[in-house]
Amino acid sequence: MTESRRRPGRPRDTSIDERALAATRELLVGRGFEATTIQAVAEHSGVHASAIYRRWPSRIELIEEATFPGLSPLGVRPTGDLRADVRRFIRAYLAAFNAPAARAAAAGLLAYHQASRRPRPPELDLRVSARPQFEEILRAAPPGSVDPAVDPDDVFDMLLGAVLARTLLLNVTTRQRPVDRTVEMVLRLLRPLGTGAATTPDA
Amino acid sequence: MTESRRRPGRPRDTSIDERALAATRELLVGRGFEATTIQAVAEHSGVHASAIYRRWPSRIELIEEATFPGLSPLGVRPTGDLRADVRRFIRAYLAAFNAPAARAAAAGLLAYHQASRRPRPPELDLRVSARPQFEEILRAAPPGSVDPAVDPDDVFDMLLGAVLARTLLLNVTTRQRPVDRTVEMVLRLLRPLGTGAATTPDA
Repeated sequence: MTESRRRPGRPRDTSIDERALAATRELLVGRGFEATTIQAVAEHSGVHASAIYRRWPSRIELIEEATFPGLSPLGVRPTGDLRADVRRFIRAYLAAFNAPAARAAAAGLLAYHQASRRPRPPELDLRVSARPQFEEILRAAPPGSVDPAVDPDDVFDMLLGAVLARTLLLNVTTRQRPVDRTVEMVLRLLRPLGTGAATTPDA
Repeated sequence: MTESRRRPGRPRDTSIDERALAATRELLVGRGFEATTIQAVAEHSGVHASAIYRRWPSRIELIEEATFPGLSPLGVRPTGDLRADVRRFIRAYLAAFNAPAARAAAAGLLAYHQASRRPRPPELDLRVSARPQFEEILRAAPPGSVDPAVDPDDVFDMLLGAVLARTLLLNVTTRQRPVDRTVEMVLRLLRPLGTGAATTPDA
């Protein structure tokens, strides 16, 4: 079905894509996940429903592309300052998950994927696409500041969980700890044995 | 509204509570979050809808009590073996979140709380109730095995995020890393500066 989106000899009108995606984000924020149907997107964007279905098999794929488009929001270039790079990376991740349309869509998409057991949650895309950037940050760090024995995947999973907990759980509570606490926890996970190099003075 | 549940001089029939709660769990697993309405619970349990409303203001509170009842599922007594205690704690947490009814309810409850911005997500209850147990585990650990400078709340937040990521995200993917990876990450967060005491040999 997705193959039809790349049919040769049929140039894709990207402005139609953009209009549908923008309308999807507006509907998510304005009316919520359930109301963001293909028909509503068609009416809101002026793009015919048939043209939308030609591009996305269902509203789920449309909403995912509109809210979690993958790599681009996390374009964090490593500077070699591990603490600063990790902080910017976490902030970029949080910003992607906290964008109004993403927040409006996240729980609905999770509910859909939990019910359907389809193997591709939107967060997974963001995760797979962001992991190489995280590894770049580690490679750019000064020698000796990252324990070579630690598996970057393990640290990345902890980081992802912290971002998820912040965006899914803590948004609806009054208790929100500073992002720098999470930065320090990630640095603690990375620091080599027997050194205090990557730690913070405050407790 | 909840006050009416503890009205003096009106003994509460706990068997009615239990029947409604059990029916709620069965409906969540069998028919899903949306179909688990007060009316459906009444029909499935044989408890009148009016009696259910007398106990729970809405289906949300009923579902929360049926799926995340708080402290009891996490009754982990510390033994003083930090790695073993952390492992049992994480497993108990995962088991509570992974119970069929909890899994069927989690995304729906999150969607509800994100939309309503009410200040009490079900996971928060579980979190607040579980944190003292986590601190007990740290207190029972051998002297020198837990960095006194690390804030247990920070570590607990990372642990909660990892549990959440495993239950919400990884259930719907094929990639599921062993729980022991998370255990080792938590031990890494806890270990004192300048020691390798709480680390694992494998990378």
